[in-house]
Amino acid sequence: MDGRVESYLNLHADRFVQELQELLRIPSVSADPTCRPHMQAAAGWIERQLRELGFRTEIVPTPGHPIVCAEWLNAAGAPTVMVYGHYDVQPADPLELWTTPPFEPTIREGAIYARGATDDKGQVFTHIKSAEAWIKTAGRLPVNLKYVIEGEEEVGSKHLDDFLEARKESLKCDVAVISDTSQYAADIPAITVGLRGIIACEITVAGPKKDLHSGVFGGSVANPAMGLARIIAALHDDQGRIQIPEFYDDVQPLSAEERAEFAALPFDEAEYRRELGVPAVTGEAGFTTTERRWARPTCEVNGLVSGYTGVGPKTIVPSKATVKLTCRLVPNQNPEKLLRNLETYLRGRLSTGLTMEFTSFHGAPGFLMDRHSPYLQAAAEAIAAGFGKPPVAIREGGSIPVVTTFREILGVDTLLLGWGLNSDNLHSPNEHFSLANFQRGIKASAALWECLAKK
Amino acid sequence: MDGRVESYLNLHADRFVQELQELLRIPSVSADPTCRPHMQAAAGWIERQLRELGFRTEIVPTPGHPIVCAEWLNAAGAPTVMVYGHYDVQPADPLELWTTPPFEPTIREGAIYARGATDDKGQVFTHIKSAEAWIKTAGRLPVNLKYVIEGEEEVGSKHLDDFLEARKESLKCDVAVISDTSQYAADIPAITVGLRGIIACEITVAGPKKDLHSGVFGGSVANPAMGLARIIAALHDDQGRIQIPEFYDDVQPLSAEERAEFAALPFDEAEYRRELGVPAVTGEAGFTTTERRWARPTCEVNGLVSGYTGVGPKTIVPSKATVKLTCRLVPNQNPEKLLRNLETYLRGRLSTGLTMEFTSFHGAPGFLMDRHSPYLQAAAEAIAAGFGKPPVAIREGGSIPVVTTFREILGVDTLLLGWGLNSDNLHSPNEHFSLANFQRGIKASAALWECLAKK
Repeated sequence: MDGRVESYLNLHADRFVQELQELLRIPSVSADPTCRPHMQAAAGWIERQLRELGFRTEIVPTPGHPIVCAEWLNAAGAPTVMVYGHYDVQPADPLELWTTPPFEPTIREGAIYARGATDDKGQVFTHIKSAEAWIKTAGRLPVNLKYVIEGEEEVGSKHLDDFLEARKESLKCDVAVISDTSQYAADIPAITVGLRGIIACEITVAGPKKDLHSGVFGGSVANPAMGLARIIAALHDDQGRIQIPEFYDDVQPLSAEERAEFAALPFDEAEYRRELGVPAVTGEAGFTTTERRWARPTCEVNGLVSGYTGVGPKTIVPSKATVKLTCRLVPNQNPEKLLRNLETYLRGRLSTGLTMEFTSFHGAPGFLMDRHSPYLQAAAEAIAAGFGKPPVAIREGGSIPVVTTFREILGVDTLLLGWGLNSDNLHSPNEHFSLANFQRGIKASAALWECLAKK
Repeated sequence: MDGRVESYLNLHADRFVQELQELLRIPSVSADPTCRPHMQAAAGWIERQLRELGFRTEIVPTPGHPIVCAEWLNAAGAPTVMVYGHYDVQPADPLELWTTPPFEPTIREGAIYARGATDDKGQVFTHIKSAEAWIKTAGRLPVNLKYVIEGEEEVGSKHLDDFLEARKESLKCDVAVISDTSQYAADIPAITVGLRGIIACEITVAGPKKDLHSGVFGGSVANPAMGLARIIAALHDDQGRIQIPEFYDDVQPLSAEERAEFAALPFDEAEYRRELGVPAVTGEAGFTTTERRWARPTCEVNGLVSGYTGVGPKTIVPSKATVKLTCRLVPNQNPEKLLRNLETYLRGRLSTGLTMEFTSFHGAPGFLMDRHSPYLQAAAEAIAAGFGKPPVAIREGGSIPVVTTFREILGVDTLLLGWGLNSDNLHSPNEHFSLANFQRGIKASAALWECLAKK
C-alpha cells in the first residue's frame, strides 16, 4: 500500500477513535420513535465527514429515517465500489446490565464500549477514514466510491428498497462492500460468503376484553397467555425441527464439502458454551453447532409479554398475550411464503375462545456469495495487508437483507468484510469494538481501494 | 330491626359514602413496596373509626403490613362475632384502562369507582357503619364484636396465621363474618358456602447469561422463552384437564344434588360471554360454566415476560423468561403437595440447555361451609332484612384462605356474606361498588348483629 497512506493512518489513529466516540454518543435507536431527532443528528454527522473530504453528499429523506449518500467519481477507468452501512443501532435495554452507559462511549482494556460500537457505526466508519487517508495524502482515491448509509437497518430497512429502486442508475457500481459481520475469531479474519435471511412478526392472542379475577372467572374462559404458549410450543418437535408447513422444502442440503469446510475451522464447543453461559448447546438434531448457526433455519421467540409482570403475585386471567417471533432463513427459502404458512399454522392451532392478531415486520431471503467473483481475491489481499494474515471463507447466521436487494436491484455481489468479533456483544449490553480491529479495519479498507482498482 | 337504627342509617347514608371515599383515596397496594406509607395510613384510618365508637383498638405490627384489631365485649351472654376484612388492594395497572384514576374515587351512575371499592374496603366498611348505628342509637351492640382487618390479603396473608396463632385466646368467638364475596347477581343476594383454594408461584427459565443476537447464535442454544412456552403448554391436555401428577386424586366429585342446585340458578351463558368479551366460553371438558368456576380446579398464567417487549422488532434470543402461575383448588386438595408436584412436573419437562428457578408465593386449601350451622339461618334473615329478599346458597371461585385458618386455629365457621357483584371489576380496571348495595350491606349487617344474638 502507498507509504504515505499508511503513515497518515498511523499518525491520525487517535483522532479517528475520538471521532468515533462523537458518533457513538448519538443515541440513534431506530426502533424508538422518541429517538427521531438523534437519527437526524447521526445522519448529519456522517454527511459532514464525507462532505469535508470533497464527496458530493446528500441526506435523502424517507418516510422513516434518512439515508446518507455520497460519491466521489474521479477515478476514470477504475471500478466503482459502493459502501453500504447503517448509522442506526439496536435498543440499549436492559440498561441495568451495562457497565458504563450505552451512549457514553468508554475505552477500557483496548476496546471502545457503546451501543453501535461494532454494529455498525464503528465498522462503517473505517471505510470513511480509509477514504480520508487517500484523499489527504494522494489527493485521490484508487477507485470510484459511493456511500449509502441508512438509518433503518435494525428495523428491517423498510424504505431502502424504494430508494435503491428509484436511484438504481446513479447507484450503478461494480461491487458492494459491507462491514457489518465478524471475523471468524480473534486474529482469524474472514470474508463472509453466506448469510441467513429472516422473517419477523408479532402475534397477539386475545381473550376476555379486560384482565379478569382468576378466582371468579378462571376455568370458564380461555387464558390467552396459555393459548399463546401452546402455539409457541407447537413450533418445534422434540428433535428441534420447525413444524411450519413446507418450511424445509426449499432448503438446499449442505454438501459434504461445505460440512468439511465448516468442520475444519477451529471451534471449541466447551469454550463457546462457557462464553454464552449455557448449561449445554442444543438445537436441530443431526447438525453441528456451526451448521446450526450458519446454514440451518431457526424459529425463535424474541420477546413475550402478558398480564402482570411487576413484583409479587396478581391473581388474574390476562386479557391478552403478545410474542415477537423471528425465523432465520437459509438461502433459497422464500420469506413471503413462509410468513404466510407461519400465520396459517398458528391460526390453526389457536384454542377455542381466543382471537389472534398477526403483524409481520419484514422479511429477507438468505444469501450465498459467488465463490468465483474476482473481487473476492482483491478483498482477501486487502485483509491480508490490514490484518497481517489472509482471511478464511465463512458464513454468518445473521441477516443483511440489503445484500439480496443489491443483487436483485443493482445486479452486484457484496463483499462482506467483518472487522468485529462475535464476542463484541452486538445487540446485547456492553457492546464493544476492539481498537486494534478498528485500526486494522481502516488499513484493510485503504488497501481494498487499491486492490479492487487492480482487478 | 330497631327503628332507631334504621332511621340512623337512612339519615347518615350520604356521610357513609363520603367516608368511604376518604378510605379509597389511600393507595394501599400491598404488592408494591413503595406503598408502605399508604398501608400505615389506611390502617390508621380504620383504627380511628373504631376507636371513636368506643372499641378497644390496636394496630398490630407484622414483618409485613399491620393488622387493625378492635373489640367491644359488653353484650354479656350474647354470642361473640369476629369480622374479618382487608384494607389492602390489588395493583391498579394497567392504569390507561381506567376511566377515572383508581385512587380518586368517583361516583357515576349510582356506583363508586376506585381500586378497592368492592374488594374489600367498601364491603368491610359496611360492618363498621352498622356498628356505629347501634352504638349511636341504642348505646350498645346486640352481640360482642371483634374486628381483624389486615393489609396482606392480596399478597397471601403471609403474617396473619402467626397473628391468629399468637392471639387465639383473645380472638375466641362463636362465628366469623366476612364480606369479600359477591351476590349471585344483581338483586339475588347470596351466602357463599364454598370457596376455592389456591397455589401460586413464579417460574424463571434461564438460558444464555445475556440476551444474544438471534442471527449469530440462534439455533445453537435453547431459547428460554420457547422452553417456558413448552412447559406451560404441557400443563393441560386437549380436554382442558390439568396434567400435574395426582392433581385430581383428592378432588371430591360433585354430587348430583349439587349439580342440580347449580343448574337451578339463573345463568345466561350468552350474556356472560358478551360481558367478558370472549368469543366462546371454554374449559375442562364435561363440566358447565358454573361448575368450572366454582367447583373445579384450574391452572392459569397470570403474567408472562421475556426479552424485548418495546415497540418494533428486536432480534435476540432472550436470556430468561418468567411466568406467574396460579392454580385454583377445590376443597380437599392439598396445596403443599400439589405445589411440590407442580415443580417436579415442570422441571421434568424443561428442555436441555435451560435452568429453572421456582418460587412459591402462598397456598391455601378450598372450603365448604357446614350447611347445618345455626348461624346460616341468622345470616339469611339479616340479608332478607337488608336486601328485601332471602339469599341463595352459592359457591365462589375465589380464595379466602383465612376461612380455612379460622376453622383450623379458632375452630369457627365463617359466614361469607357478599354485598358486591362479579361485574364490579374486582382485580380489573374500573373497579366499582353500587351505592345501593353499599347501603343494603350496612343495613343487612346491622340486622345481622340482632339476628345472631337470637341464636
